[in-house]
Amino acid sequence: MAWTAVPPFRSMTPTTRMPATLAVDIGGANTKAALLQGMSLRTVSRPFEVWRDREALAAVLREVAAEAGEADAVAITMTAELSDAFRTKREGVAFVLDAAEEALGDRPLSVLTTTGELVSVEAARARPWDVAAANWVASALAVGAAYPDALLIDTGSTTADIVPIAAGRVAASGHNDLERLLAGELVYTGVLRTNLAAIAPRVPIRGEWCAVSSEYFAISADVHLVLGHLAEEAYDCPTPDGRPTTVAFARERIARLVCSDADQLDAGEIDAIAAFLAAEQLRHIEEAARRVGRPLPPQAPVVAVGAGAFLGREVAARLGRAVADAPAGWGAAGAEMAPASALAALLAARLC
Amino acid sequence: MAWTAVPPFRSMTPTTRMPATLAVDIGGANTKAALLQGMSLRTVSRPFEVWRDREALAAVLREVAAEAGEADAVAITMTAELSDAFRTKREGVAFVLDAAEEALGDRPLSVLTTTGELVSVEAARARPWDVAAANWVASALAVGAAYPDALLIDTGSTTADIVPIAAGRVAASGHNDLERLLAGELVYTGVLRTNLAAIAPRVPIRGEWCAVSSEYFAISADVHLVLGHLAEEAYDCPTPDGRPTTVAFARERIARLVCSDADQLDAGEIDAIAAFLAAEQLRHIEEAARRVGRPLPPQAPVVAVGAGAFLGREVAARLGRAVADAPAGWGAAGAEMAPASALAALLAARLC
Repeated sequence: MAWTAVPPFRSMTPTTRMPATLAVDIGGANTKAALLQGMSLRTVSRPFEVWRDREALAAVLREVAAEAGEADAVAITMTAELSDAFRTKREGVAFVLDAAEEALGDRPLSVLTTTGELVSVEAARARPWDVAAANWVASALAVGAAYPDALLIDTGSTTADIVPIAAGRVAASGHNDLERLLAGELVYTGVLRTNLAAIAPRVPIRGEWCAVSSEYFAISADVHLVLGHLAEEAYDCPTPDGRPTTVAFARERIARLVCSDADQLDAGEIDAIAAFLAAEQLRHIEEAARRVGRPLPPQAPVVAVGAGAFLGREVAARLGRAVADAPAGWGAAGAEMAPASALAALLAARLC
Repeated sequence: MAWTAVPPFRSMTPTTRMPATLAVDIGGANTKAALLQGMSLRTVSRPFEVWRDREALAAVLREVAAEAGEADAVAITMTAELSDAFRTKREGVAFVLDAAEEALGDRPLSVLTTTGELVSVEAARARPWDVAAANWVASALAVGAAYPDALLIDTGSTTADIVPIAAGRVAASGHNDLERLLAGELVYTGVLRTNLAAIAPRVPIRGEWCAVSSEYFAISADVHLVLGHLAEEAYDCPTPDGRPTTVAFARERIARLVCSDADQLDAGEIDAIAAFLAAEQLRHIEEAARRVGRPLPPQAPVVAVGAGAFLGREVAARLGRAVADAPAGWGAAGAEMAPASALAALLAARLC
């Protein structure tokens, strides 16, 4: 493993003249940016599904960067290469690098690898598999700099990253998505975009098990909205039926999972389905976290970040582990987009 | 139960002057029509996803009817009301009835209920829940007229209908979709449109279990295409990535289920994933068929129809049951769209 830790944020003081660094985390459904200057972190998030209109990516990157503010240097990381807008990851990486160079290339631009290096765009082009899906490495390095032993659980809109930190080093056993799925370090469940049909094959209804429809009728954002885990404004991805992100419409979407509607099921019955599915998501993350965290000492805390940090904290309780704060300086918005926040700091540290 | 059997096709002879009857089965993703005149059955199928452009439904019905040919009377049945183009089934049924009346209302028009009645459009409007998702009843009545005891397994593009026939009568315990999901009589798995992420939470890869991505990356048509169960031309629904329906592209889609691509996994590894998922679909149908068929005598055969009849036949073998032919007169095309074929005959029998 070639991962090395970076100094934690708290070692940076406002009196040091720090360069302004911009990090952009280019996902398949969301693009997130963090601008760090000294102790000040500014974050921007933009829902953008690359498969809908990949040609718009450069424009989106330009907008997000402009909104974040002036930067002396830029680093990017990506997961968008997995989108089926591209036939292979190689093609996807090349496309994202082109768009990033076009939109952000007027400043020094580097790309994160899965071993924690920051490499040039040219080097990234030559090693597409090393820069694909590397964003979790940034957060893991930052956590490793703050805590000698920890279990990072970053639960986002679509996936959960579970990364062990041991003796201050990233102790993950997988590098790419496939290795990480096999290891339990990548769990494809999140608090916004997950199709409920992919969470459980059956749900309880009126005291019985009911098999579910496999259509794209409702998503995890509907579940967490009706359960009060998320506010309406946090539901920032498209709804499956194109209707509003209110609790009433979310209940209609969830009812359709069992081929029903709001005439047929009452709110209590629908909310019971939601509660079951949230518990199933929790169980999936818990099982993976138990497996990934097994080598860690019992006192290693969980660092729970992401839009679904509430799930990571609950997993910590089930594992009997303490919950530790995200690395200082991220704040609530930074912890929601840990890879971008951490990558901005990583770039700043490398520049100094 | 108010279901009554109709005379089987074979009681009709070409010398009898029969009215030409048209049946249209209006689904959420496909519209199917069957025109029956004497012993001659003509079928038409049109992929049409009602949520993409519901206003086009009347035009699609008009085209499908014109392609099927001149009819003296028309009967319809539907499952399209479940589409999230509509907030409730009530709204969906009303919309479909309006479109049917507009497109097909120049001839006597009737609507199938879940108890096997053919009612007027006005009566259907007053009882929307009785005409929603009734299409399986037509096939079950026809099977009941041909076999005193049987287990109908109609495996379509999206779902499998499993209906017990006992003593010549439809012995289903559920009427509507929810009751049928609860009873195992409706299984939401099919041979074309099922998201692979909804078939199994993990797949075998290189001797290990690998959790899957929950995105809409690949569907059951990809699986059955690479396994040789389906021909390219049978893959008549849109592909998830918009690329062609060839084996090579299907393999790329399946690789993406484990966040991989054709650079990372070879054909043998991808086909092993496909074989596992096909076996899982089979297991789901088998489990439901065991449960639904439990009250039937051992000599009751399986009548396997639908685009996925190959799965129904394999389930019969696992259950130790014989496979019986579809009711005479359907032919291969008719058996692929059993509800429309059976409904055309049901209407003809009612008219005589």
